Amino acid sequence: MFEKLKEDVYEANMLLPESSLVIYTWGNVSGITEDRKYVAIKPSGVDYAKLTPDMIVVVDMQGKIVDGDLNPSSDLETHLEFYEAFPSAGGVVHTHSRWATIWAQAARDIPDYGTTHADYFFGPVPVTRALTEQETEEAYERNTGKVIVETFRERQINPEYVPGVLVSSHGPFTWGKNPFDAVHNAVVLEELAMMAWHAEVIHHSEPMSEIPEYVKKKHFLRKHGPDAYYGQKQS
Amino acid sequence: MFEKLKEDVYEANMLLPESSLVIYTWGNVSGITEDRKYVAIKPSGVDYAKLTPDMIVVVDMQGKIVDGDLNPSSDLETHLEFYEAFPSAGGVVHTHSRWATIWAQAARDIPDYGTTHADYFFGPVPVTRALTEQETEEAYERNTGKVIVETFRERQINPEYVPGVLVSSHGPFTWGKNPFDAVHNAVVLEELAMMAWHAEVIHHSEPMSEIPEYVKKKHFLRKHGPDAYYGQKQS
Amino acid sequence: MFEKLKEDVYEANMLLPESSLVIYTWGNVSGITEDRKYVAIKPSGVDYAKLTPDMIVVVDMQGKIVDGDLNPSSDLETHLEFYEAFPSAGGVVHTHSRWATIWAQAARDIPDYGTTHADYFFGPVPVTRALTEQETEEAYERNTGKVIVETFRERQINPEYVPGVLVSSHGPFTWGKNPFDAVHNAVVLEELAMMAWHAEVIHHSEPMSEIPEYVKKKHFLRKHGPDAYYGQKQS
Amino acid sequence: MFEKLKEDVYEANMLLPESSLVIYTWGNVSGITEDRKYVAIKPSGVDYAKLTPDMIVVVDMQGKIVDGDLNPSSDLETHLEFYEAFPSAGGVVHTHSRWATIWAQAARDIPDYGTTHADYFFGPVPVTRALTEQETEEAYERNTGKVIVETFRERQINPEYVPGVLVSSHGPFTWGKNPFDAVHNAVVLEELAMMAWHAEVIHHSEPMSEIPEYVKKKHFLRKHGPDAYYGQKQS
Repeated sequence: MFEKLKEDVYEANMLLPESSLVIYTWGNVSGITEDRKYVAIKPSGVDYAKLTPDMIVVVDMQGKIVDGDLNPSSDLETHLEFYEAFPSAGGVVHTHSRWATIWAQAARDIPDYGTTHADYFFGPVPVTRALTEQETEEAYERNTGKVIVETFRERQINPEYVPGVLVSSHGPFTWGKNPFDAVHNAVVLEELAMMAWHAEVIHHSEPMSEIPEYVKKKHFLRKHGPDAYYGQKQS
Repeated sequence: MFEKLKEDVYEANMLLPESSLVIYTWGNVSGITEDRKYVAIKPSGVDYAKLTPDMIVVVDMQGKIVDGDLNPSSDLETHLEFYEAFPSAGGVVHTHSRWATIWAQAARDIPDYGTTHADYFFGPVPVTRALTEQETEEAYERNTGKVIVETFRERQINPEYVPGVLVSSHGPFTWGKNPFDAVHNAVVLEELAMMAWHAEVIHHSEPMSEIPEYVKKKHFLRKHGPDAYYGQKQS
Repeated sequence: MFEKLKEDVYEANMLLPESSLVIYTWGNVSGITEDRKYVAIKPSGVDYAKLTPDMIVVVDMQGKIVDGDLNPSSDLETHLEFYEAFPSAGGVVHTHSRWATIWAQAARDIPDYGTTHADYFFGPVPVTRALTEQETEEAYERNTGKVIVETFRERQINPEYVPGVLVSSHGPFTWGKNPFDAVHNAVVLEELAMMAWHAEVIHHSEPMSEIPEYVKKKHFLRKHGPDAYYGQKQS
Repeated sequence: MFEKLKEDVYEANMLLPESSLVIYTWGNVSGITEDRKYVAIKPSGVDYAKLTPDMIVVVDMQGKIVDGDLNPSSDLETHLEFYEAFPSAGGVVHTHSRWATIWAQAARDIPDYGTTHADYFFGPVPVTRALTEQETEEAYERNTGKVIVETFRERQINPEYVPGVLVSSHGPFTWGKNPFDAVHNAVVLEELAMMAWHAEVIHHSEPMSEIPEYVKKKHFLRKHGPDAYYGQKQS
């Protein structure tokens, strides 16, 4: 009865290595049934190269396995917390993708520095506070979900308008109306994170001197205009 | 009657993902007929993987569709503004390519820091001023074109000598004598943007100490000269 | 009698160029027999494209060749020092992979800036002190191994908990329970090194201004919600 | 009579795009006959995708074409200057490869920051002084060669020990005992340039705080040791 969802969750998971967002087992995608009673998720520690649709694990909202032989992703509890708190989320993605993880490790929001960002995320992609020692030692994965939800609630961010978050020191989660949409947002977040990093650094930098006018002229006119001598004669 | 132009515009569009300048639907190429009465452009929001030549939309200079069933790119009005203002432009490209977009987000010109730049662009690649609130809310795409044209006029830049621009906070546009030439300039701009970024940063940096002379000697002579012992005996 | 080990060491070596950790001959993998009497290692200066399993050289713990016609890697003595000092190491990898080598050249530990790091390395990946002139000129490769062992002993680091090290000015070594596991750690180290580099720099950077609210709204609502006009009408 | 040299020069040229050192026509390789009377070089402005061995142009040491129908690379005069001044050079390469060009644009030597550098280049890779206006306007390409030779002479650098140079604001040249060896050095130079850039920047950076001990423990022990709960039970 979960065949279609398992197939979708499988295919969405496979997009992660194809999009260069994960290596080895560094990520997972889940999806939820329309009645929001069951969640399908990648099994824990299984290499993408060996993943098949029938390995996808289905659990109920308490995390009890209802279909599948393998342990679900160790991040399952975080995913469940998402689905409970964000009723519009139909799919959730977690990765350690390079650029988004860099901002998470720097404990910084990804600021909204351009229209590419604004096309997908309305305002900065927030970073959570760090988990306390107690939150880390007890129900770590569940508390990871809780601190994300807390971030959106306290900063009054609408998760439909900002479908992504950075867990401090850890990495990104994104979501969407289905698992594929959640992966789409993960790919976009990675681009935004890379561009914001470099935009900020070069914005603060001082220009140096340009090349002299005579070099500009020499090189441009060597290739363009009536005296160009680069390349072959046009026949 | 637009078959050749549509085919060219299609092929030039497909070069964008092939050149790693765009993901998903983040870019578009257009071309204009020789009589400068009609413009062919990518349809809006269509994934490159699904694009076919017959999906290319042809419009007149008022933006009215004369051939095609799909909505043209939402950036159409910007393209039309180009063709009106720059009579030598036969093709126009818009992307959100990483390195050019980074400079656009930093609201900085790309300075002319080398001969590779000078081979293609005579002087810096200018960034526009930001659009005002009113310009953004009314006829946004048309005003994006207008602010580009204003930049070239006010700074007295010849668009044949500088076939590219950065729209502040947004991303690059490039042009050329035809759609393929415009894509060529988009690829070149991306290289120049990447190299200028890093040249400026390392120019301002202080050298650190080199490795000691005895390490230089050990490693160089381990591989070169009569006492080399790296590798296999030459037969 | 060493066929299985040679095959494993061959395959683990081939993973280095496949994982973009080495070009030309810039790396080597070794493995040790269960009785810890023999070590199989890549031959010196042989291009990966030409490597075959029968070229793998087997030596005893004094470095004497017991199987094979080629010179072993010039780094052999470093590997032997590892196996002697770290009895749990079943495989050792040396590369000049870009990001780990960058930290080695900067003579800095790779700090533990995130959970991805903590998943594999318990604490920073240490950099050794520089070798003295005498250590460099006499028994250089053996002394490279000795300074690694010294680093772990003096800083009281458990090599099972931190299966990697940076040799100052040189590059990384990693190890694991077998040659494949050692390569796995080399790939992971490269990711951690890349992310730590960028996390630290952006952590120290000042944010710049975000784009104005009216641009955020324009772009987000152009693609999302009831007034979206990007893309095609949904059928 | 030049078939073998033309074939070698062709193949060495084709390695440039394969090694991601050039796009479009941004580079060229030449080779010289054993009697040092004739030089074979890529034709000017020909795309690598369309290059064939019979297009390679052979000239004498005055630059007069002795075999071939196309114009030689516009950089020919620079190559000839090399062969005259550096009698051990059997092949010469010019590219605008990203990382080496970045240092050239920053007008900085590439310092010798590590053993990978020392394996190939004995000391820094020097950058030339800028050409004067007169040198640029008269015999530009010949003067580019002259300023390179001047750099090695004045700084007393042995071109066999440092087989590469950066032309200020322009890009790298490398050489070797034959065209393939020259390309090898061009690939190596690109790696060294990339690593030196990042080593210097992170060397000057201040570390930030590592993650707390309790996070280190949680993540490491979630995957390692007797209480690990990541992944599947080992069968």
